[in-house]
Amino acid sequence: MENNNNKENETKQDEEQTQVINPWQVSSKGKIDYDKLIDQFGCQRLDQSFVDRVHRLTNRSPHIFLRRNVFFAHRDFNEILDGYERGEKFYLYTGRGPSSEALHLGHLVPFMFTKYLQDAFKVPLVIQLTDDEKCMWKSLTVEESKRLARENAKDIIACGFDVSRTFIFSDFDYVGGAFYENMVKVAKCVTYNKVVGIFGFTGEDHIGKISFPPVQAVPSFPSSFPHLFSGKDKLRCLIPCAIDQDPYFRMTRDVAPRLGYNKPALIESLFFPALQGETGKMSASDANSAIYVTDTQKAIKEKVNKYAFSGGQDSIENHRKYGANLEVDIPFKYLSFFLEDDEELEHIRKEYGSGRMLTGEVKKRLIDVLTEMVERHRAARAAVTDEMVDAFMAVRPLPNMFA
Amino acid sequence: MENNNNKENETKQDEEQTQVINPWQVSSKGKIDYDKLIDQFGCQRLDQSFVDRVHRLTNRSPHIFLRRNVFFAHRDFNEILDGYERGEKFYLYTGRGPSSEALHLGHLVPFMFTKYLQDAFKVPLVIQLTDDEKCMWKSLTVEESKRLARENAKDIIACGFDVSRTFIFSDFDYVGGAFYENMVKVAKCVTYNKVVGIFGFTGEDHIGKISFPPVQAVPSFPSSFPHLFSGKDKLRCLIPCAIDQDPYFRMTRDVAPRLGYNKPALIESLFFPALQGETGKMSASDANSAIYVTDTQKAIKEKVNKYAFSGGQDSIENHRKYGANLEVDIPFKYLSFFLEDDEELEHIRKEYGSGRMLTGEVKKRLIDVLTEMVERHRAARAAVTDEMVDAFMAVRPLPNMFA
Repeated sequence: MENNNNKENETKQDEEQTQVINPWQVSSKGKIDYDKLIDQFGCQRLDQSFVDRVHRLTNRSPHIFLRRNVFFAHRDFNEILDGYERGEKFYLYTGRGPSSEALHLGHLVPFMFTKYLQDAFKVPLVIQLTDDEKCMWKSLTVEESKRLARENAKDIIACGFDVSRTFIFSDFDYVGGAFYENMVKVAKCVTYNKVVGIFGFTGEDHIGKISFPPVQAVPSFPSSFPHLFSGKDKLRCLIPCAIDQDPYFRMTRDVAPRLGYNKPALIESLFFPALQGETGKMSASDANSAIYVTDTQKAIKEKVNKYAFSGGQDSIENHRKYGANLEVDIPFKYLSFFLEDDEELEHIRKEYGSGRMLTGEVKKRLIDVLTEMVERHRAARAAVTDEMVDAFMAVRPLPNMFA
Repeated sequence: MENNNNKENETKQDEEQTQVINPWQVSSKGKIDYDKLIDQFGCQRLDQSFVDRVHRLTNRSPHIFLRRNVFFAHRDFNEILDGYERGEKFYLYTGRGPSSEALHLGHLVPFMFTKYLQDAFKVPLVIQLTDDEKCMWKSLTVEESKRLARENAKDIIACGFDVSRTFIFSDFDYVGGAFYENMVKVAKCVTYNKVVGIFGFTGEDHIGKISFPPVQAVPSFPSSFPHLFSGKDKLRCLIPCAIDQDPYFRMTRDVAPRLGYNKPALIESLFFPALQGETGKMSASDANSAIYVTDTQKAIKEKVNKYAFSGGQDSIENHRKYGANLEVDIPFKYLSFFLEDDEELEHIRKEYGSGRMLTGEVKKRLIDVLTEMVERHRAARAAVTDEMVDAFMAVRPLPNMFA
């Protein structure tokens, strides 16, 4: 999952607003136009009725990412909820491309949300670490990709997943058997021209890239996990992910009926913006573009104060007069992702938006929120042992799968 | 290994002689021009000095397929022999695409020869059953491809391989782990344009086909078999195969040095001709184009008498006068593959070629030779139990590997 390079799905609307969104590139000349993206990809907007329905069905307060519309689009999520209401369980599938040692906050978003879904719906979860993908797209050796997969697994486990309901696997470890059979079945249904259309590959791309989409597709099918879902071929799959992964699952959904399989459902998030603003890109080569889970309190403070793009005005007078532009303000956006207290966020929206609150105050609050979050993650990760990683990654039945 | 479809490597020399030779198609307007093929593919001719050297090194009479130049081309076979002379062992790799229930005689050629090499050099052997390939190229389900792989394994075992030195595997069973890691490493080194150049894929081909070449490539590398060759990364590989498989291994040899691996060596055979003659094609859809190992004595007799293309003249008078054209005569060609007795073959060459012997007599001799061969194979295959198949296909160390 996720990466760089590649030129497709580029739709020119007008000269000011060109956006390129695919699993390897997220870039936009202006703000990302998510409405346009929904149209272009053909998914649905996740409106308030879903939030209310999830609240009712799970009997618990909807996750902050649902309340705040961070997860804003879906495919067939209604069918998952219909089934759930009839007593039909499903399973969750998400993943990560292990390309770096330390995760940043954007990487945590799908995992934090997936943990909530697992807890709220009490369903099994498979997490794919695409070490093969990273080995092929980045200049990483097989060994280094595998090592990063295991390191990243620790960060994922630190998000609090339930080992009795969670199977984490790396492709280099797990590809084979029923999983490989499904890869072949999918590959057989997708032409080269088709993947060029979906992913924008060119003739100079290596065949590893062209071979990869089925690898990310097949965890959507329960038969890829005979140790978990044997005899449960009709179990539905729900994929929480950032919307740049949609192309993989559009392809998967296209192919599924031809194989007699259910289409996976999706619930898709916005991108977590770079400190420099929504048009910027969190870049592995620029440590100052993102907050990492390994950042110290001091680093967090410095990064937020120095780099977080402010929607505040250029002078206090103007700020008091016009207020902050919350549409582009990164401290406020970050708070809307992570500040749990709805009332406090509303208060900040009003006070900061009207100019009564200054950027410095908002940044201070953000620094506190992020520091606490990162500290909590660091402590949780430090407690993850190698034995725990082995336990999550063991190919075994999940005892509490639907309990 | 092996198949149909596809239009590449077509080199127009002149209008009478166009030949298309690749892993999926062998067709030619006239006789196949093997000299041209050697030039085009860039391999070497296997001359008499090799036959003599093998004789000397193995201290046994060279196999009929060596003496008769059925295996006529090679890549680096000299290096394999150089190493062997220094006391360095190697391993053998060959394979089959399990697309049909019953094998024909052409299918047996590489296995008969490989068995000889295994016995003569006392080396381990891996046999790949590309059930994934057949599932993707033919309209076979995964289950049916796997079933055929197992059925074909029985025919292969019936050729007399030594279970203490032989590992037979199907891709659906074995792809994964170190094998998959090598697939990714190879895929990363080969662009789409490159496989188009080698194999002639088009944009309408499915990505399963484009993904497949690394699967057939990696058994060339000892690290793909950690249960056999752990710590023996420099062990050389020798591949006996029909020359239509050369494109796979040209690609493999191209990539090997970039991965720090040895290039596999090859020893390559002519095609076994169809009963209708060398320009014809043995076709699964025409049972009369080939002798199958399941044919009865009666069927063999009928097929040879009715369909085997004769180089004899149209009347006895002309035959006595001009003699048979041995260049196109199928009964004589088949005898040159399978009649062990060099003197008898020489006798037939002279007598038949000069017109003193008639086609009927030669066909009669061929029917005897084929009947005996097929009967022997049938008896051997009947003795192959499921337990034996399991034993050959078990992922285990080979006890007598280099003994």
